[in-house]
Amino acid sequence: MSTLQNDTLIRALTRQPTPYTPVWLMRQAGRYLPEYNDARRRAGSFLALCKTPSLATEVTLQPLERFRLDAAILFSDILTIPDAMGLGLYFADGEGPRLERPLRDEASIARLAVPDPAEDLRYVGDAVAEIRRALAGRVPLIGFAGSPYTLACYMVEGGASEDWRTVKAMLYKRPDLLHRLLETNSRAVSALLNAQIEAGAQVTMIFDTWGGSLPAAAYREFSLAYMEKVLSRLKRGEGSARVPVIVFTKGGAPWLEQIAAIGCDCVGLDWSPDLGEARQRIGKRVALQGNLDPMVLLASPEEVRRETEKVLESYGSGAGHVFNLGHGVPQLAQPENVEALVAAVHELSPKFHR
Amino acid sequence: MSTLQNDTLIRALTRQPTPYTPVWLMRQAGRYLPEYNDARRRAGSFLALCKTPSLATEVTLQPLERFRLDAAILFSDILTIPDAMGLGLYFADGEGPRLERPLRDEASIARLAVPDPAEDLRYVGDAVAEIRRALAGRVPLIGFAGSPYTLACYMVEGGASEDWRTVKAMLYKRPDLLHRLLETNSRAVSALLNAQIEAGAQVTMIFDTWGGSLPAAAYREFSLAYMEKVLSRLKRGEGSARVPVIVFTKGGAPWLEQIAAIGCDCVGLDWSPDLGEARQRIGKRVALQGNLDPMVLLASPEEVRRETEKVLESYGSGAGHVFNLGHGVPQLAQPENVEALVAAVHELSPKFHR
Repeated sequence: MSTLQNDTLIRALTRQPTPYTPVWLMRQAGRYLPEYNDARRRAGSFLALCKTPSLATEVTLQPLERFRLDAAILFSDILTIPDAMGLGLYFADGEGPRLERPLRDEASIARLAVPDPAEDLRYVGDAVAEIRRALAGRVPLIGFAGSPYTLACYMVEGGASEDWRTVKAMLYKRPDLLHRLLETNSRAVSALLNAQIEAGAQVTMIFDTWGGSLPAAAYREFSLAYMEKVLSRLKRGEGSARVPVIVFTKGGAPWLEQIAAIGCDCVGLDWSPDLGEARQRIGKRVALQGNLDPMVLLASPEEVRRETEKVLESYGSGAGHVFNLGHGVPQLAQPENVEALVAAVHELSPKFHR
Repeated sequence: MSTLQNDTLIRALTRQPTPYTPVWLMRQAGRYLPEYNDARRRAGSFLALCKTPSLATEVTLQPLERFRLDAAILFSDILTIPDAMGLGLYFADGEGPRLERPLRDEASIARLAVPDPAEDLRYVGDAVAEIRRALAGRVPLIGFAGSPYTLACYMVEGGASEDWRTVKAMLYKRPDLLHRLLETNSRAVSALLNAQIEAGAQVTMIFDTWGGSLPAAAYREFSLAYMEKVLSRLKRGEGSARVPVIVFTKGGAPWLEQIAAIGCDCVGLDWSPDLGEARQRIGKRVALQGNLDPMVLLASPEEVRRETEKVLESYGSGAGHVFNLGHGVPQLAQPENVEALVAAVHELSPKFHR
């Protein structure tokens, strides 16, 4: 594989000095880009994009053609795992992901098997390998998976929920069942992440989108503990080939110290905590990623630049910050605003690295 | 007015010793109670319940007939203020509140007037007075209003939103406009709360349901600062007649110290922070209210009792805790579970007050 020409992200994730703050954006390949919508139309569906390595490669690279981003992130979906487990992933129009066969009883949870990444999720590893070839060392490629608890949310509920009543009812009524499901999920997640690493992913990220809906003690028991298990099973490599791990719990601001303690290199922050305060709390142990409010991208380029500068100032001087949004790029974002964001990070951040 | 026979809530809110932990529940009068649904049917609509003092009194008292609660809370809605401002509140079936005429431009925000509580919101004060008479001093009556920012969310967006894109776009593009709206809202909120206090409300609570959707700095500037203004204008009274104030920001766990500093007596917690840690952070300055996960009420009475005990243990010994959920009683809660919760607090809490 090609040598990495831009290792700014890797260095920042391991808190080594960099000449500027590296920047990439969650959901940087997505519906705000006309060329993405074009590829999706050609593919026929979102899922076909994920499952066709050449198309996944095409859309993964699209934002890199437009913006000076310091990383590519595999185009995929966290629900490919439940899909490979046979739960039947589909996307209802404008309604987000749904599973045809949600898990509601002991029997269906008991018979759940860990998918073999080389078989049922082969398209993921193939996409990683193809993207690495296409990138030719330009920037590192980030692989990812959902957290065991976040996957369980969808697998039990059948889709997104305002209050996650079904999975929470299971948590309080049958914690043993939920633990069993989480154990299976954690094995599936670590297997998939290891397959991505083997195929060439140079950074790994766990998206715990819904762990923040839990009370503190339940978060530790049902989400954090299983992410820790995933991390303990990762084949991260050693020395300069070691793969840094980012853990992102949306709504996780109350628990940053605990997240920083599970063995990750970097903690992802949504937009709610003050970045400077978060750095005081955990910045000596881990790098921090985030935390611009995605809705800033609905304003003007000047306002985007101003808010970007505030985030850089909030982190302050020194290594260990990866610029990102606090969540994904909104569908209604103007590409010129994303351009303004990326340009502002490159232009304004060097002074924090002298 | 009658003397208060049960002042446990008032004492806990002012961190004086009590023989047990007082308990009330957000949305304790609501759709989980068959008698509530019956009254709503008779009224014809939710809004008619709010606007008819005799019906508001009836439903306010319903949960007190069933459960040994230590407070009544005025049956009303935070959106009565935008309704009185002429924005046209209505409830689409199963979709939550909507406003017919959301505020989207400078002119509509400029011409917004602060409603006179004695005129446009007279039904609120009338309900407070009638409930006080009906309570006859049994327990204190809590009055409430939405926070200026939470009202602005609905007033700009026109209804609830996953990402509050419209109000946030205004925040980043036209902060001056949003500030103008928030100033008007803060005057309307303090006027309504003062009218409730004058009519007999013995405790006041500000519901900042959506302040938690903001980044830290924006929360301080656009939500917290205006709640502080509301508090500064409240006629709270003095000595034993002083009206304690509870401030509740859902999702406010990252900012507890700042919330505790705006002059409230008690900080309401959702279910995400650990209650014991929250007490360490701010428990010397304010009382704490919360923070059982409402979804516990979907489990069995035994499980409700166990989780209730965990919350009591998390706060530990001593004054200053008001037991509550971290958000409202869910519609699907079984009344027997609410019964189990209230009974468990009364039975298990005295040992923490010796």
